Amino acid sequence: MTALVTFGETMLRLSPPRGERLETARELEVQAGGAESNVAVAATRLGRDAAWFSKLPDSPLGRRIVGELRSHGVDTDGVVWADDADARQGVYYLEHGASPRPTNVVYDRADAAVTTLETSETDLDAVRDAEVCFTSGITPALSETLRETTADVLEAAQDAGTTTAFDLNYRTKLWSPDEAAEVYRDLLDSIDLLFAAERDAATVLGRDGDAESVARGLAEDYDIETVVVTRGEEGSLAVSDGAVSEQGVYEAETYDAIGTGDAFVGGYLAKHLDGGSVAESLQWASATASFKRTVEGDIAVVNPGDIERVVADEGDGISR
Amino acid sequence: MTALVTFGETMLRLSPPRGERLETARELEVQAGGAESNVAVAATRLGRDAAWFSKLPDSPLGRRIVGELRSHGVDTDGVVWADDADARQGVYYLEHGASPRPTNVVYDRADAAVTTLETSETDLDAVRDAEVCFTSGITPALSETLRETTADVLEAAQDAGTTTAFDLNYRTKLWSPDEAAEVYRDLLDSIDLLFAAERDAATVLGRDGDAESVARGLAEDYDIETVVVTRGEEGSLAVSDGAVSEQGVYEAETYDAIGTGDAFVGGYLAKHLDGGSVAESLQWASATASFKRTVEGDIAVVNPGDIERVVADEGDGISR
Amino acid sequence: MTALVTFGETMLRLSPPRGERLETARELEVQAGGAESNVAVAATRLGRDAAWFSKLPDSPLGRRIVGELRSHGVDTDGVVWADDADARQGVYYLEHGASPRPTNVVYDRADAAVTTLETSETDLDAVRDAEVCFTSGITPALSETLRETTADVLEAAQDAGTTTAFDLNYRTKLWSPDEAAEVYRDLLDSIDLLFAAERDAATVLGRDGDAESVARGLAEDYDIETVVVTRGEEGSLAVSDGAVSEQGVYEAETYDAIGTGDAFVGGYLAKHLDGGSVAESLQWASATASFKRTVEGDIAVVNPGDIERVVADEGDGISR
Amino acid sequence: MTALVTFGETMLRLSPPRGERLETARELEVQAGGAESNVAVAATRLGRDAAWFSKLPDSPLGRRIVGELRSHGVDTDGVVWADDADARQGVYYLEHGASPRPTNVVYDRADAAVTTLETSETDLDAVRDAEVCFTSGITPALSETLRETTADVLEAAQDAGTTTAFDLNYRTKLWSPDEAAEVYRDLLDSIDLLFAAERDAATVLGRDGDAESVARGLAEDYDIETVVVTRGEEGSLAVSDGAVSEQGVYEAETYDAIGTGDAFVGGYLAKHLDGGSVAESLQWASATASFKRTVEGDIAVVNPGDIERVVADEGDGISR
Amino acid sequence: MTALVTFGETMLRLSPPRGERLETARELEVQAGGAESNVAVAATRLGRDAAWFSKLPDSPLGRRIVGELRSHGVDTDGVVWADDADARQGVYYLEHGASPRPTNVVYDRADAAVTTLETSETDLDAVRDAEVCFTSGITPALSETLRETTADVLEAAQDAGTTTAFDLNYRTKLWSPDEAAEVYRDLLDSIDLLFAAERDAATVLGRDGDAESVARGLAEDYDIETVVVTRGEEGSLAVSDGAVSEQGVYEAETYDAIGTGDAFVGGYLAKHLDGGSVAESLQWASATASFKRTVEGDIAVVNPGDIERVVADEGDGISR
Amino acid sequence: MTALVTFGETMLRLSPPRGERLETARELEVQAGGAESNVAVAATRLGRDAAWFSKLPDSPLGRRIVGELRSHGVDTDGVVWADDADARQGVYYLEHGASPRPTNVVYDRADAAVTTLETSETDLDAVRDAEVCFTSGITPALSETLRETTADVLEAAQDAGTTTAFDLNYRTKLWSPDEAAEVYRDLLDSIDLLFAAERDAATVLGRDGDAESVARGLAEDYDIETVVVTRGEEGSLAVSDGAVSEQGVYEAETYDAIGTGDAFVGGYLAKHLDGGSVAESLQWASATASFKRTVEGDIAVVNPGDIERVVADEGDGISR
Repeated sequence: MTALVTFGETMLRLSPPRGERLETARELEVQAGGAESNVAVAATRLGRDAAWFSKLPDSPLGRRIVGELRSHGVDTDGVVWADDADARQGVYYLEHGASPRPTNVVYDRADAAVTTLETSETDLDAVRDAEVCFTSGITPALSETLRETTADVLEAAQDAGTTTAFDLNYRTKLWSPDEAAEVYRDLLDSIDLLFAAERDAATVLGRDGDAESVARGLAEDYDIETVVVTRGEEGSLAVSDGAVSEQGVYEAETYDAIGTGDAFVGGYLAKHLDGGSVAESLQWASATASFKRTVEGDIAVVNPGDIERVVADEGDGISR
Repeated sequence: MTALVTFGETMLRLSPPRGERLETARELEVQAGGAESNVAVAATRLGRDAAWFSKLPDSPLGRRIVGELRSHGVDTDGVVWADDADARQGVYYLEHGASPRPTNVVYDRADAAVTTLETSETDLDAVRDAEVCFTSGITPALSETLRETTADVLEAAQDAGTTTAFDLNYRTKLWSPDEAAEVYRDLLDSIDLLFAAERDAATVLGRDGDAESVARGLAEDYDIETVVVTRGEEGSLAVSDGAVSEQGVYEAETYDAIGTGDAFVGGYLAKHLDGGSVAESLQWASATASFKRTVEGDIAVVNPGDIERVVADEGDGISR
Repeated sequence: MTALVTFGETMLRLSPPRGERLETARELEVQAGGAESNVAVAATRLGRDAAWFSKLPDSPLGRRIVGELRSHGVDTDGVVWADDADARQGVYYLEHGASPRPTNVVYDRADAAVTTLETSETDLDAVRDAEVCFTSGITPALSETLRETTADVLEAAQDAGTTTAFDLNYRTKLWSPDEAAEVYRDLLDSIDLLFAAERDAATVLGRDGDAESVARGLAEDYDIETVVVTRGEEGSLAVSDGAVSEQGVYEAETYDAIGTGDAFVGGYLAKHLDGGSVAESLQWASATASFKRTVEGDIAVVNPGDIERVVADEGDGISR
Repeated sequence: MTALVTFGETMLRLSPPRGERLETARELEVQAGGAESNVAVAATRLGRDAAWFSKLPDSPLGRRIVGELRSHGVDTDGVVWADDADARQGVYYLEHGASPRPTNVVYDRADAAVTTLETSETDLDAVRDAEVCFTSGITPALSETLRETTADVLEAAQDAGTTTAFDLNYRTKLWSPDEAAEVYRDLLDSIDLLFAAERDAATVLGRDGDAESVARGLAEDYDIETVVVTRGEEGSLAVSDGAVSEQGVYEAETYDAIGTGDAFVGGYLAKHLDGGSVAESLQWASATASFKRTVEGDIAVVNPGDIERVVADEGDGISR
Repeated sequence: MTALVTFGETMLRLSPPRGERLETARELEVQAGGAESNVAVAATRLGRDAAWFSKLPDSPLGRRIVGELRSHGVDTDGVVWADDADARQGVYYLEHGASPRPTNVVYDRADAAVTTLETSETDLDAVRDAEVCFTSGITPALSETLRETTADVLEAAQDAGTTTAFDLNYRTKLWSPDEAAEVYRDLLDSIDLLFAAERDAATVLGRDGDAESVARGLAEDYDIETVVVTRGEEGSLAVSDGAVSEQGVYEAETYDAIGTGDAFVGGYLAKHLDGGSVAESLQWASATASFKRTVEGDIAVVNPGDIERVVADEGDGISR
Repeated sequence: MTALVTFGETMLRLSPPRGERLETARELEVQAGGAESNVAVAATRLGRDAAWFSKLPDSPLGRRIVGELRSHGVDTDGVVWADDADARQGVYYLEHGASPRPTNVVYDRADAAVTTLETSETDLDAVRDAEVCFTSGITPALSETLRETTADVLEAAQDAGTTTAFDLNYRTKLWSPDEAAEVYRDLLDSIDLLFAAERDAATVLGRDGDAESVARGLAEDYDIETVVVTRGEEGSLAVSDGAVSEQGVYEAETYDAIGTGDAFVGGYLAKHLDGGSVAESLQWASATASFKRTVEGDIAVVNPGDIERVVADEGDGISR
């Protein structure tokens, strides 16, 4: 049995070297990146059994994605392979920024194979057998079909007693706040554990006020057991069955900020699935997010000992 | 005034190092590649004024294409910029082969911005002012809209006295022989100078027999002034106003075979526009194609002196 | 259930770029390489479920090995992790040659963690449940302990009805022909399917004569069901239950010859496990070996369709 | 008609990776760099038509320069090609520093082809037709011939009503303050728009005091319409027809500081040629300089939207 | 005559690019690194004649080490070549950290050839002829044999009037504080010039208190002429014949901190051998250490002028 | 005492990756290359003590040259350092060819520091103490000063009983056959051992006929003890005191042909200095030349065992 099942889109991430712009690039580094697989990788590397499913073209590009995820130990048996010749693999181009030049993401994900993933193609039994089932707000943003599949899977999971976890993950380039809000509101009724960036809660769901009141409000309105609100440099806060936990940020020299939020969720779920309390899970979430920042790529290439050291704060810079 | 105008799709070409497969790649080399821009670059580098137009997304990826073409001297002022957020830049992934592993191309070009290029967006005056207007059989294969635009542009050109040039360039992964044949037949009436691989003539147009009879047949049936038939390692042959010219192949150590056919056309047009005879143009075509094989990328990075040396056969291996 | 279980040492392979010598190298490419894991990867990629086990240091280097094997789908759950601080990861340095400079391998594998792998640490049930259990003559060459473990595992497998497969794989730098011969002779009694290079059979086992008589002799003397003798460019030959099958070599442009023999075995076992005849298995063996030569690294990055195409001989050089 | 014409030397810039010293380098990155072409590129990229002329060897190295400049859209038709076999291409080697190790530039530009550029070889009509003609104090430092050519071109421009723009750009490694002062004083009479680093004004022209008094003094003494004084981290100041404008610095994470001053001038001229006021031009100058710092190379790979965002201060770090 | 002789182990240092972890690395940069050869290189580059000896395998890997050291001018004639087939070259893998991820060193140096270096194999005359003989506390930690050889060489040196210099260099991964303390105490009687990190003095030798009292205590207890105590960011202090010298730290943007301590010793010895006072030697030590931090690799790629500039504090960031 | 002293120019060699042209290059590989230092390196690596002297700028570029030569063991103590700010380091750009595109060398060596090397700056005693003193026909081609210095050094050597060795090495891009002939004729009187490519003997010295008669003619006319004539793929021939030796070519997969002739001379001298006969020296010359072809760069990265294997013809492709 797999402790965690996640689903969503994973793209090829193509990025030129630091200091170089996309429009003059001659070489692109290739990696796999997607919110839900990032979460699965972090949880797997931290010791949990995790699976990820999606729909990929049966092409070198699709196999490239699966190969990288498997290398970290993620179970990809649930992947649906699209073998029509024009099945697409989503791609995103990433230009690393430096103030005042923002890090820029150019998506090329329209009509990716995953947008046609129907509920009937998914292995709902695997979802029902898992302890936690996770996806993010990116998934229902990708197509009408995925919107329905997302709703179906989360419902099936919750019905079977699987904890449903969701990260709002609002993306401006995918849809408007109003479109997102309508979908989020429908889905939130099926969610047991919600991760929400303070900004997303405000922009999309119109939730202003301090983090605690936002968390409490969401928990009450949608009957969500645990709501985690992240506040960037100011740390994070969880309201779980009415109780509040707070967590600061571990400082990091940021090498690559992409995937930090997913590492946060992955760290949280890893500790949670290991029996950790909400406070402990938040601590692992924060430490994993911080650690992720030091590594190139979407993925938190992390081991349990790494996080234990961050939490225990035992660094002296060089280990030899 | 520009001597040559070409139009069609130019893609980003992404390729892993030799000996590495796409599905395990960690780095991809980036270049611009497209039959018609390859032709324009070769002609420009060989001394002619050439322009290329197309429709590109107004994004770093689209600008990447234009920057590379301009670096070779091609005039890109006619490019139409698509500024809708979801305008796509076509991409192709190239895995260099080694026998028995074939070189493999994975297209990701569906719905590229160029597929929406309408006649009204193009600068027909530039086409009418040119001496030669060129496109290839790939262009009308890309969309219904492009099929019409291709027909319109070639007709406008021919009506204005511009020589219309066309390379069949049949691509299995884009359409069936039957679909291609129908479109080709319509277009051939507007063509003055046709380039056809012997295999394409057979597969698509059902033209069997020796190269000369194929050329003569096409010239007569469609009233084409000059038909050039290429026969791979066996050289090429032209029938022009009934007269036959033949040309052998210059041997090459092949480093990258992609773009060889486009270099052939570019070399032909460069010499033709310089007042060369059909035989001389064929010779430059063959030499440019051979030279291209020694250079990485779609593009023939060539100078007039390079071709003069090949034709004069003055190589001794090292020049110092 | 896993169709194939292999075991042995997998090293980090460190190699400078082509044309550069180890003693002036500034950058080394890293890959995982080992005869038995190479076999497991080839079989997995060609569609069979395969596992590999060994003993690795619980360090970034050991995890590097497992990550790469898992990326190809190999089950590594049976790996024993050595967590003592001085557990070693074997390494080999590879300098690509060009005649008259030979490809040179510098081993640094003494006292690697795998040399301490005892039978009691292995999962014999997994071996007993498999259809085929494979190792090579390198494994017992590495330590006295491994010699015993190899014998124990092969015996346990054969007793349980698992087909035991073995490749002589004699390595001059590891032991003398006499040392090897003694060990081989003991092990051969437990073998059902033997792969032997003609040269190894002569050098180590003193088997001269033509390939068929070598194969028949080994089959009879050690009561081996199937003996496959490989003869380099001259192809291969199998004697199975007295019947002879012969197979030529598929020509290849060799990019990297390391791992060719392992790809041969992997291709054979993949077809065999899929119900192929000896002749069909030999054909897949030969095609996989040929294909491997075109790819950098020890590992045959191959898919079933690739081999089907080689066997069907449908290449035209470029697929687009 | 071209809005801006610049002229001067452009070198190949060869630099090892960060953290590596020139004297142990094994790989050098190649780019084109020169104050005046840097200005032309920045202005072109920001939307103005700009040309650059110089004298280059008719060799792969000279063509390398032109190719890179053309890729950004700069018109290089005015380049004079030196086809004598020993015509030199200037080169500079750049070692990126890190405190306390300074960034080090090793020039190898003596006797470059450009040092023989005579007035009679230049296209003075293009200069006369332009709105602005720009060069920097590096140009007359390179040779006696260039000193005369610089004077001739600036005079011809001013006589034709073209605005003449000049950046002092004093370089210790090229000449002494006294030599520079003599030449500057002659040239300043032909200048309408002067850019001067506060330090250069002091070192070379003996202008001490605060920036405003320096600017006013230069404006009055040489009858210069607009004098812009840059003060490093303290911002910049312009005196134009007696009126003063001040501009602060936009903070930047500096990736490569080379070319910052040229980006400043390019940004200024781009806005000025678009009808901007002195204050607006200074703001674009400052924003372009800041943006340049985030990009590897001499050249500001910038688009109008980038600068609009810096000026509007709308960064949130990641755009996705 | 050589001014300085050092001896000890030099390893191959293999490190992935910044931001990448060892366990996902695909390319490793290769360099030579070892405390004593780092010291020899720094001293040689700063103008002194220096030699280094050790025992290396007669293999491409051993020759790789010698080649790199020779490139900096170090005399390696005293190297003993081990030509048995299984002689090992020590290696260390270096993962560059970023807070909170520590820089991680994975040693693979057990049983390296150097561990068998006996006194009889060394050229004691070269040691006796030198002005200074240096090794560090790493050398006796590597094997019992090296412990004896270290003692023998230092004694022979001191007996001949050669100044013996020693850096405690305690390494947790090599031995326990107690083991180290016993060996250090024996060796310190033969030492004339001791370098000790404050932390090592405390951890291993139990010397607490301020740096001056630590230095005085060590000098008195072991009759050491000069004791230098380094205190990280707080600078360094020397007690020499009872007199105290203090030195601050030159601030640096750290690119690679490995080898900083060795650069400190190398800078000290270079100035000392040039007749510098203790205070001047400390200043050069500090400046060389600071400069080293800006360069990738174990080795201080430094020239005398570089250190003169740091000491004179004449940096303005760019020299052109 | 040094067995061999060579002198001449060594340049930085800058070359783009294979398949890429200089005029589109983004990265250049850096190496040291020069006929005489190539000879010194080959001889040193093959076991002889060799020195090289020249005049280099006291800059990172000059030190880059010396560092690389020293890494191979060449004694560079005789190098004269030019410390005037404008002392130049010669450079050559190398574009690897592939038929029909020739390998192209672009020299940028005019006015290099070495062109000012006067006899008075050289250490003639070192030359007189050597067994062999070597330079090539490139050296006197570089400047009038070098012409005199070359004559002086060779004369001083011969007078002292040092064997003088010379390779015609005619370079079209440096001077005309007539200019070269005049200088060669003067120098040949001071030569004891001459290496001449058959083509150079014909082109410059007008020596036609078969190789033996060319060799005999040169030996007699200039009273040269040994004349070696190389004939490309047809091998080489020596006439020494009237006796003829012939040597074939060892076949090689050519990776980089530059430096092959220098490796030939280096191999010859290494064997000659080891007491080899003319025939044995020719054999080593031929084997070293062949081996060089397999290695990137001007330099033969070779060890004595490598050549012994080539001569003994013991290759089987992979050594493991």
